Amino acid sequence: MTTRFSLEALNAMPEQGFAAALGDIFEHAPWVAEGIVASRPFTTLTALHAAMTAAVRSSGPERQLQLIKNHPDLAGKAARAGGLTKDSEAEQSSAGLDRLSDEEYARFDRLNQAYRSKFEFPFIICARRHTKDSILEQMEARARHDRAAEIETALGEVFRIVALRLDQRITAADRLPVHGRLSTHILDTYHGRPAAGVAIELIELFQLGGERRITTGVTNADGRTERPLIAGRPLPIGRYELRFEIGEYFARKAVPLAAPPFLAQVPVRFAIAEPEGHYHVPLLATPWSYTTYRGS
Amino acid sequence: MTTRFSLEALNAMPEQGFAAALGDIFEHAPWVAEGIVASRPFTTLTALHAAMTAAVRSSGPERQLQLIKNHPDLAGKAARAGGLTKDSEAEQSSAGLDRLSDEEYARFDRLNQAYRSKFEFPFIICARRHTKDSILEQMEARARHDRAAEIETALGEVFRIVALRLDQRITAADRLPVHGRLSTHILDTYHGRPAAGVAIELIELFQLGGERRITTGVTNADGRTERPLIAGRPLPIGRYELRFEIGEYFARKAVPLAAPPFLAQVPVRFAIAEPEGHYHVPLLATPWSYTTYRGS
Amino acid sequence: MTTRFSLEALNAMPEQGFAAALGDIFEHAPWVAEGIVASRPFTTLTALHAAMTAAVRSSGPERQLQLIKNHPDLAGKAARAGGLTKDSEAEQSSAGLDRLSDEEYARFDRLNQAYRSKFEFPFIICARRHTKDSILEQMEARARHDRAAEIETALGEVFRIVALRLDQRITAADRLPVHGRLSTHILDTYHGRPAAGVAIELIELFQLGGERRITTGVTNADGRTERPLIAGRPLPIGRYELRFEIGEYFARKAVPLAAPPFLAQVPVRFAIAEPEGHYHVPLLATPWSYTTYRGS
Amino acid sequence: MTTRFSLEALNAMPEQGFAAALGDIFEHAPWVAEGIVASRPFTTLTALHAAMTAAVRSSGPERQLQLIKNHPDLAGKAARAGGLTKDSEAEQSSAGLDRLSDEEYARFDRLNQAYRSKFEFPFIICARRHTKDSILEQMEARARHDRAAEIETALGEVFRIVALRLDQRITAADRLPVHGRLSTHILDTYHGRPAAGVAIELIELFQLGGERRITTGVTNADGRTERPLIAGRPLPIGRYELRFEIGEYFARKAVPLAAPPFLAQVPVRFAIAEPEGHYHVPLLATPWSYTTYRGS
Repeated sequence: MTTRFSLEALNAMPEQGFAAALGDIFEHAPWVAEGIVASRPFTTLTALHAAMTAAVRSSGPERQLQLIKNHPDLAGKAARAGGLTKDSEAEQSSAGLDRLSDEEYARFDRLNQAYRSKFEFPFIICARRHTKDSILEQMEARARHDRAAEIETALGEVFRIVALRLDQRITAADRLPVHGRLSTHILDTYHGRPAAGVAIELIELFQLGGERRITTGVTNADGRTERPLIAGRPLPIGRYELRFEIGEYFARKAVPLAAPPFLAQVPVRFAIAEPEGHYHVPLLATPWSYTTYRGS
Repeated sequence: MTTRFSLEALNAMPEQGFAAALGDIFEHAPWVAEGIVASRPFTTLTALHAAMTAAVRSSGPERQLQLIKNHPDLAGKAARAGGLTKDSEAEQSSAGLDRLSDEEYARFDRLNQAYRSKFEFPFIICARRHTKDSILEQMEARARHDRAAEIETALGEVFRIVALRLDQRITAADRLPVHGRLSTHILDTYHGRPAAGVAIELIELFQLGGERRITTGVTNADGRTERPLIAGRPLPIGRYELRFEIGEYFARKAVPLAAPPFLAQVPVRFAIAEPEGHYHVPLLATPWSYTTYRGS
Repeated sequence: MTTRFSLEALNAMPEQGFAAALGDIFEHAPWVAEGIVASRPFTTLTALHAAMTAAVRSSGPERQLQLIKNHPDLAGKAARAGGLTKDSEAEQSSAGLDRLSDEEYARFDRLNQAYRSKFEFPFIICARRHTKDSILEQMEARARHDRAAEIETALGEVFRIVALRLDQRITAADRLPVHGRLSTHILDTYHGRPAAGVAIELIELFQLGGERRITTGVTNADGRTERPLIAGRPLPIGRYELRFEIGEYFARKAVPLAAPPFLAQVPVRFAIAEPEGHYHVPLLATPWSYTTYRGS
Repeated sequence: MTTRFSLEALNAMPEQGFAAALGDIFEHAPWVAEGIVASRPFTTLTALHAAMTAAVRSSGPERQLQLIKNHPDLAGKAARAGGLTKDSEAEQSSAGLDRLSDEEYARFDRLNQAYRSKFEFPFIICARRHTKDSILEQMEARARHDRAAEIETALGEVFRIVALRLDQRITAADRLPVHGRLSTHILDTYHGRPAAGVAIELIELFQLGGERRITTGVTNADGRTERPLIAGRPLPIGRYELRFEIGEYFARKAVPLAAPPFLAQVPVRFAIAEPEGHYHVPLLATPWSYTTYRGS
């Protein structure tokens, strides 16, 4: 599933090749790709995604419902039995749904069943835009909606899933707006320059306690990490903590410090609410003070 | 042991009464109180403490060594068997030495033995000025000293212990400089006024993971807690975290917030190094930024 | 006019003495004081002020209008000719109305005339709560009101003038809420302690350029000025600048600085809008950064 | 003088053309360009500048002294009489030396004479790296040096002048390190996003009062000015003020403000000490607070 095509190549393929290449973009619904073969060529990924969306929109309520029903439960029996499509598997894993505790599985099962028994279709969410916590919150919130609203919401989520699949599989001149960015920057306002060599950790915090390390880094000469902390993918909605080891940094600079130093590891706890947004979370620090904010 | 005397009353007591009232101020060493009976009256607590210190200083190396040896091991067998003086018991408890895990007991035992076998006297520290973590750090650091330095350090700690016991037991016009103060203040720089009604927690952080809640509070109309977070006693050297619930605060003020809010619980992690110091750790916050520092 | 009486003494005076002592509290309107003689004793200044206010409120529209008309023009001919009551003279001087340029006099004359010709009474404002700039702004804004609103506003200002006169002339257990406070505080977040010995200036800024120094100070060991920058009187509504000489401060502390230092004199420009408010305007500074805010 | 050559073209010119094109790069000293003709081709501007520097370094003390003496006085008689080379004229003008008051001219004359009578050559400084104020400071400071040190300093300044002239006149693959950059950025920490549409002024402050507007700008959607405030040239050493109109900005955003607003125009006063440095001077602001710092 990881072969990448250029949009140009897709436009040049025989009809069957095109349908085969994109047949699984919609979950168990090759008819969407087949339905747009004749509309080629697509000059941009945006146009391709729009054509697919339009094909679904015009396919009528029954096919749409079927499309929704094609999706597996999140963290459901199929997932545990290894019965997911490769894409679904990777997507559920990105939100940590493949490493749940028994208790969490039970909670997902309970919420899945409640949702299914109310709406008669599975709960669909674009898992790459979420953490385990935000999926559970969404399951609880959306279970309170009415059926028409949920069909619309489910379709919207399907289109997001599809956009991310297209983004991963097809290279083109344009990019779909599916990526967020999380970056940081440390200024040493004691010396008036960027703080280089500061160790940084990015942690995902779980609502019910516990945490998971997402990435680590060290600041370069400009006080930034070489690459954004997260980029090239959506920022999962959820709660995070950045940890900056400024005590070690100031000690290395031979700055006089208290023993133990007033500030050592500085935690900055924040939430991401816009998966496609740019979150810049800098730190301005001295051994005795710091400032942080959502920057740009 | 909790009867409080006025200094005036102590000055007016018969000699035996005075010696009895203060006989246990030094651990198993009533001779110190006896030795200063004739120097009465003491006009200040400072003068009384200085007289006691001088009596020990002039008593010669043997008595001083004996005085040191009178002290029990920290978190040692006597403590576990209930064989401490009331004062020692309360002091060890203040640093959490009465609720150690088996592993921690083992570590204390190991360090106690190493210390004793090198110096031939117990490790003495004014426990009320420390946390479990800083005591362990001190045990390791001081074990590397030479014997003369450690005798001097031990005597200094004994005088600190005594100062705190006098402070608790005697009322006088003056106070010994044995108290620190930890306070906070929250400014809402979104509205330009103190943040009232913000829930605050003060946590002691353990080096090896784990934590203990020291106190909680809610800010008043001036953005402060009604009383300092710690006052009227030394601030134990150690690592702490203040947690400010500013997400709830701004939500109550009907400020437009992201979902989830960018900032909800703000943790400020800091260390105390001066038990008799004043630590003011304020927060200036908006829903998108904050500043903290050691203030005054 | 500067003799101060205690409220007690006023209560004990013969009727004529009381009327004489407070006869000039309302401008050329001894009838107000005379009218409340019989209501003595007044246990608080608040009660005395309320009685006077009530006497005017119940005196009917004609007497009220006469009371308003008793007031002189601000910066008008009477002022220039020395024909003001002592109180009015001091009040107008507090806002700088006795040291206007010819151009400013002309502007006041123009606005006074426009106001008088619309309302048939003089423009009244409690000058101690204002600067020259804010009086001019008020003259322009209030000239657009209707007559009923302006009569009400003028009476309100008269009661404020009276409250301040009572506050200056009478001592009592309570105080009228007529005082504001402006204070500052400098934290050196490079060293983590208050910045002592920093020179501070407080300047009033004039809208049309130019400025006037209100006061100067030097911070003490706690980083504060010994007394508030303004206290014991209203804070005149207007625009101000605090100037903090932090370059000299850090140079004295032998902190390595650029040449010339990045920050030397830090200006903080702000406006006061609440004459009876508490404005705390602190500075958190390193040689390379600073933060300021309305504190508490 | 404003014709620009490519380095390639210079390498390809006949010898006389090269000498003519660069003959005035050193003030009245065509021998420097002539002396390096044979060393062509120069692959980089850096190599060309190094060759010129080396030619002067190896030319012996007499020619070096003559080279120094070729320079005109700063703000001297030649300047006033229009007798400068085009380059010198533009350089002196960049520091404002062509618009001095009579008093300032007199001060320059006095300092020029004192310098000349001590060293027997004119005071040379790379004027594009300075303001009027910093030139005067340098004149006073350098007059206290000894002759050998001043000859060395003067040569260094000549090489800087030459580097800037080469930078203006020749295009090449590389650039000489003669440019600084001054930029700003405004974050609205009330809304958690960049502050767009904020008017900004950059002012040069004169030591003895007075000021000069350098540039103005308005922030774009990212809270930055479209171009740096200064770029593509050295940052003149001196004192500056940035003025940010945040009161108008928050008013346009319909944020509730005091009347007058607590903060309206925010002045940030700072000095530049490194002409080739990057100065980023951002503002984090709410209607009630702000933070500024030397960023990166």
